[in-house]
Amino acid sequence: MTDSFTFRLLATDGKARRGVVSMPRGQVRTPAFMPVGTAGTVKAMYLDQVRDLGSDIILGNTYHLMLRPGAERVARLGGLHEFARWPYPILTDSGGFQVMSLSQLRKLTETGVTFRSHIDGQRFEMTPERSIEIQGLLDSDIQMQLDECVALPAKPKEIERAMELSLRWAERCKTAFGEQPGKAMFGIVQGGDVAALRVRSAQALKAMDLKGYSIGGLAVGEPQAVMLDMLDATCPELPEEKPRYLMGVGTPDDILKSVARGVDMFDCVMPTRAGRHGLAYTRRGKINLKNARHADDPRPLDEESDCPAARDYSRAYLHHLVKSGEALGAMLLTWNNLSYYQKLMHDIRDAIEARAFVERSAEISEGWARGDLPAV
Amino acid sequence: MTDSFTFRLLATDGKARRGVVSMPRGQVRTPAFMPVGTAGTVKAMYLDQVRDLGSDIILGNTYHLMLRPGAERVARLGGLHEFARWPYPILTDSGGFQVMSLSQLRKLTETGVTFRSHIDGQRFEMTPERSIEIQGLLDSDIQMQLDECVALPAKPKEIERAMELSLRWAERCKTAFGEQPGKAMFGIVQGGDVAALRVRSAQALKAMDLKGYSIGGLAVGEPQAVMLDMLDATCPELPEEKPRYLMGVGTPDDILKSVARGVDMFDCVMPTRAGRHGLAYTRRGKINLKNARHADDPRPLDEESDCPAARDYSRAYLHHLVKSGEALGAMLLTWNNLSYYQKLMHDIRDAIEARAFVERSAEISEGWARGDLPAV
Repeated sequence: MTDSFTFRLLATDGKARRGVVSMPRGQVRTPAFMPVGTAGTVKAMYLDQVRDLGSDIILGNTYHLMLRPGAERVARLGGLHEFARWPYPILTDSGGFQVMSLSQLRKLTETGVTFRSHIDGQRFEMTPERSIEIQGLLDSDIQMQLDECVALPAKPKEIERAMELSLRWAERCKTAFGEQPGKAMFGIVQGGDVAALRVRSAQALKAMDLKGYSIGGLAVGEPQAVMLDMLDATCPELPEEKPRYLMGVGTPDDILKSVARGVDMFDCVMPTRAGRHGLAYTRRGKINLKNARHADDPRPLDEESDCPAARDYSRAYLHHLVKSGEALGAMLLTWNNLSYYQKLMHDIRDAIEARAFVERSAEISEGWARGDLPAV
Repeated sequence: MTDSFTFRLLATDGKARRGVVSMPRGQVRTPAFMPVGTAGTVKAMYLDQVRDLGSDIILGNTYHLMLRPGAERVARLGGLHEFARWPYPILTDSGGFQVMSLSQLRKLTETGVTFRSHIDGQRFEMTPERSIEIQGLLDSDIQMQLDECVALPAKPKEIERAMELSLRWAERCKTAFGEQPGKAMFGIVQGGDVAALRVRSAQALKAMDLKGYSIGGLAVGEPQAVMLDMLDATCPELPEEKPRYLMGVGTPDDILKSVARGVDMFDCVMPTRAGRHGLAYTRRGKINLKNARHADDPRPLDEESDCPAARDYSRAYLHHLVKSGEALGAMLLTWNNLSYYQKLMHDIRDAIEARAFVERSAEISEGWARGDLPAV
């Protein structure tokens, strides 16, 4: 255990990086996938299961938690780790993204954002300082600066304005965060789909000497190629000795291609959300359990998996659960999906250590391309 | 293990009975509570958890399973035990009760019932022979005769007609079931709230020498006192050496009072359904987690429980999950509730063995009456 927040690079293979982020609550092996625990729960999972799958860290959403149960309440109850029974590292977003996508009647100024809760219409003000205060009340280990994330496509002028505002907010967040040796506050690179703006944002944040760097405003509707171009522009501008977190990304394929460009950390609702919609991520690609072809199929999703959800239950049973709207369907498919994502990260880390990332990536992609087993 | 279906009475205390039902797939300690696995899943639970709570047997609903995924399909997939991954005993109802309560355009004749599925309107015919055939396709260990269960209040003439029809159907089910040494087909005592009809039904079924006897048509809206009167009338007419199953009952208090009258087996959706509606059964009575008094309460539901759901999670967290509609709320509260029900059955069995059932019942009831902890 460590008293401070550190990042160690253990190996590289091309631009792909194998490292470890250490903090008092534990170590995060990178490249890492962080399951999303929006409201203090990774949906349809016991957190023991999430841990057992190899998750070193989970993500909490500041916007959701500040509205319900409320940051001050979580603090009184001992913080988010105690509240949700997850004693390991937690990363929180700033709340900004969801304020812009979910809340009502929002108004953005230099100071911050005022908005009304999508739950009960209550009025809130979110400033860079308040975002850091809330994340502190939650006792988050890795906190995010408040930023403005513009939806793409957007005009370059608008992208630039939001990027510049985000830089000023990064300074305010850094000041508000102060010195907290065991914790980190990450800056967020913005700049939309304009490489030159991404570079300026990354350079300015680098000059602030933060403990880590997020890449935000991607996977917001643009083609994958645009996202990868932005990573190509951004990653070389970020310091080697700090972790890099690509926010809200993504599909297994997005992750492989982003690791190849030097990204260390990921979060995404896909494995959990897909699990509630009858979709399974597997080494043979994505499988839709709603499809009638599975109704009489006694085979499991993946007989070679270590995960009971993937290995022990027939597709016929999973199909039945999904068609019947049974909670166990979501429970098993979410379990399978997080298992697959964490297995993917495990394989990625192994491959980088073995300096075989390109070959292993190609094998994984070929498995997806071959697709599912023929129907019975 | 045994090749045959047997019931052994191990101890009695007053009319309360402690026994064991044995069959090839396992033993059922009685008095027993059978969690309801309507559509091949005990809602919001992994069956491993259900087993670990001390459940020796679960119930499957013939009506639901015949509609979806279909009895022939379940048979092709190896039967309900294999399908749902529950290798222990399973009891199925006949489908009759749900045909009458859920289906559409039903028509009842001496032959059976025709009805349309509540899911897709498909037309089905359910006869005593088809009910037994379906339960055989599911590979159910304890099967029920098809009966007609009238809703109370009803006219005595109507109750008598349905009771007599149920007796004729019992004969047909007995013939259809034939000789199956490791399995059982139970007859169902009907007779509504008319003690004399209950007695006639029980005596006629006893004369058929079935392997077990269910008591149906109770807990359908009548006061508890009426139900208990019917048990007082019925149980003495049933053979001592056969198990007695009170269908669809009930609250913990119903169970205590029915065990006192000689009932051996119970099933009820209450613990599972309540778990999905924010309600927790505990030794301090029923607790509504939706109530705002729990919002800041760091205490667990029951610090003395062996069940993690009861012991390890704060009421504040459970309140938050329930208010947020999170799946984990239903998962934890269902787990707590089934844990409480199985603990109650365990205590009941212990008390009968120790010939202390009356005293122990009084203590348990006093715990409920004292109610929940004072608010924090």
